Amino acid sequence: MQGKFSSNEEERFQVRKLEILDKSKGFIELLQQLTVCDSVSDKEFQQRFQELSSYGDDHLICVIEDDRSGKIVATGSVFIEKKFIRNCGKVGHIEDVVVDSCVRGMQLGKKIIGFLADHAHSIGCYKVILDCSVENRAFYEKCGFKPKEVQMVKYFT
Amino acid sequence: MQGKFSSNEEERFQVRKLEILDKSKGFIELLQQLTVCDSVSDKEFQQRFQELSSYGDDHLICVIEDDRSGKIVATGSVFIEKKFIRNCGKVGHIEDVVVDSCVRGMQLGKKIIGFLADHAHSIGCYKVILDCSVENRAFYEKCGFKPKEVQMVKYFT
Repeated sequence: MQGKFSSNEEERFQVRKLEILDKSKGFIELLQQLTVCDSVSDKEFQQRFQELSSYGDDHLICVIEDDRSGKIVATGSVFIEKKFIRNCGKVGHIEDVVVDSCVRGMQLGKKIIGFLADHAHSIGCYKVILDCSVENRAFYEKCGFKPKEVQMVKYFT
Repeated sequence: MQGKFSSNEEERFQVRKLEILDKSKGFIELLQQLTVCDSVSDKEFQQRFQELSSYGDDHLICVIEDDRSGKIVATGSVFIEKKFIRNCGKVGHIEDVVVDSCVRGMQLGKKIIGFLADHAHSIGCYKVILDCSVENRAFYEKCGFKPKEVQMVKYFT
């Protein structure tokens, strides 16, 4: 099978689940490239990590660690919503996808999205959804997504 | 305080949490006005109900029961996503809002949305989001929401 990665790049950038030690590998700094994310204390990180782990397969955060630098260079999450509609169906919600600006253009975002969508599919979701800016729409279309609705937001702060 | 409801209507249409007996009050039939929702067996309903109840305040389904007919005439849900961004912030996701076509125009949708948004706010979410069709955008703007992003979807079925 021909991929878009050389085998070196495949080895260098593998997707895996978030681990508790990833905080020391730049995970929070990576999220800061996405949005407001002040420094999180080790204790806060561990608490949230444990909380999310308790959901098992219903909440997954994946990362790509650059095998050369040991830094986390990409991440994304998916959580599973359980519904009554669609015969008690399940929907995967993809959130907080970011690729380090230093390694953009290497299709790491596509790897992350593929990993998260495969996870949602494998545990029986009938669809996976996400919200993105108009600028990122073309990227997600390349990942097999189609635009559907309008995201509406109400801030409390 | 002057509301848009007469006190009779306030009493007739009160918002409360979904209860296990609501299946026999037309809850599933109401969801069928929203989207595909084949008949759900009592066992399936109970299982999903228990599963969702186990999330406590992190997953809430509310309903309005018409005090006159004893039927469920409106519903909506919100679940709480826990993040690392925004200082380990939380976001409320509103889903599956529907008002019985027989009682539309009585602001029941607005009551449902208010109830769900208040819940998200009360447990510390920094924002609440939802996805809607272009046609429903004006309704959600009246509820205090603003359009932000594009919802993208990938179906597995």
